Amino acid sequence: MGIVFHERIGLDGRRISPFSWRIRYAFAHKGVEPAVVATRFADVERIRALSGQPLVPIVEADGRVVHDSWSIACHLEDSYPDAPSLFGGAAGRGAARLVNVWSDMTVMPPLRRVLAADFIWCLDPGDRAYFRRSREQQFGTTLEAADAERPRWLAAFLDATAPLERTLSEQPYLAGAAPAYVDYIVFSVFQHARVGSPRDVLADAADRHCLRAWRARMVALHGGLGDRFAGYPAARSGPDGRG
Amino acid sequence: MGIVFHERIGLDGRRISPFSWRIRYAFAHKGVEPAVVATRFADVERIRALSGQPLVPIVEADGRVVHDSWSIACHLEDSYPDAPSLFGGAAGRGAARLVNVWSDMTVMPPLRRVLAADFIWCLDPGDRAYFRRSREQQFGTTLEAADAERPRWLAAFLDATAPLERTLSEQPYLAGAAPAYVDYIVFSVFQHARVGSPRDVLADAADRHCLRAWRARMVALHGGLGDRFAGYPAARSGPDGRG
Repeated sequence: MGIVFHERIGLDGRRISPFSWRIRYAFAHKGVEPAVVATRFADVERIRALSGQPLVPIVEADGRVVHDSWSIACHLEDSYPDAPSLFGGAAGRGAARLVNVWSDMTVMPPLRRVLAADFIWCLDPGDRAYFRRSREQQFGTTLEAADAERPRWLAAFLDATAPLERTLSEQPYLAGAAPAYVDYIVFSVFQHARVGSPRDVLADAADRHCLRAWRARMVALHGGLGDRFAGYPAARSGPDGRG
Repeated sequence: MGIVFHERIGLDGRRISPFSWRIRYAFAHKGVEPAVVATRFADVERIRALSGQPLVPIVEADGRVVHDSWSIACHLEDSYPDAPSLFGGAAGRGAARLVNVWSDMTVMPPLRRVLAADFIWCLDPGDRAYFRRSREQQFGTTLEAADAERPRWLAAFLDATAPLERTLSEQPYLAGAAPAYVDYIVFSVFQHARVGSPRDVLADAADRHCLRAWRARMVALHGGLGDRFAGYPAARSGPDGRG
């Protein structure tokens, strides 16, 4: 059996997780086509039994189970040394780890609050109650109250991502002349925002034209991978999303 | 004539500029010993005549004048391809540029306010009036008023640098197993803080033990390069520093 990718899935097969997106791009970069196991929040006990922890993405290969997107990226890099490199060597891998941690600690927290009230509608109806409960506990407020504060969190997100604009004004990709895993890390965050809300996080950011152009190039990469699955649902309906 | 390094110099030959420190480490990494031209703020017209802009570091080699620390690092990397690499390849260079921009835009601004009232005493007395004037204009407040707000700016600096602790809890250097230019970029900021103030920015940050250990390793690197020059002056005296 080949390599298996347990990927977070939302409503009607939507791909919604930033952490799964970066691994999907990493597979494409390596030219590897995994078998995909669609995973909902409701599948948490299966995931826990498989990996000893509750989160996807997970990759299974040769009897090994690897969880955590960074560990998976390193596993892919080391398992396919003859395919194009995700890091371009040891120093690139080290710096990519810093970018990954920066993205997780600085960029994702405000974005979660920007998206939450829209994002719930991208989930399978059976996952919405869990999502609402866990996010509201994390935020200390309802999704609707978080949404009322959206302008403030959007400003914090744009502030955190300001270094991207300047970097991309000097080079076409974060990894330089060609895309690599640092691009996939950061793009996965914007892709999560793109499929998770009908409101573009860059809509009013007139000074982010290099970032916007890079995002479009990243969507188009690997045969238009960023547009392969359905985008934000046209209608908002079903239990627990409220609205 | 060999390669010439125009380096910012403070009181009694102190090395005080973060941008010059990262280039000094880059030279050591490459095993290249440049001729050093000590440069004070008062030398601005000489620097302008040489490079068309007012800032150091500047490197002169083979009739070429290169300014801006990032451009200099790239120039050294490309000029000494057989010496140890500063970036570890193209993708590493790309990611290092993002780290450089992040450091400049996110880490340095709060640190400037944390240090300012102490830092002026590290300058040649003849440079202090210029420094006070330019910094007070930049801050919109006196150095002493900025210092009264030090706890707030120190908290912002520690917040901005939080990704470093988590990264360094997983790998000994920001570039991975061995130091490279990403380490020099970030270390130069901490070295600037170290020689520019008697108050350790990490003194009360109990949760930053990996960062503190990394800083010590970086000071010790290249034959103890971080301690080669005088540290913070024992006495504060002379014109325009006030206090």
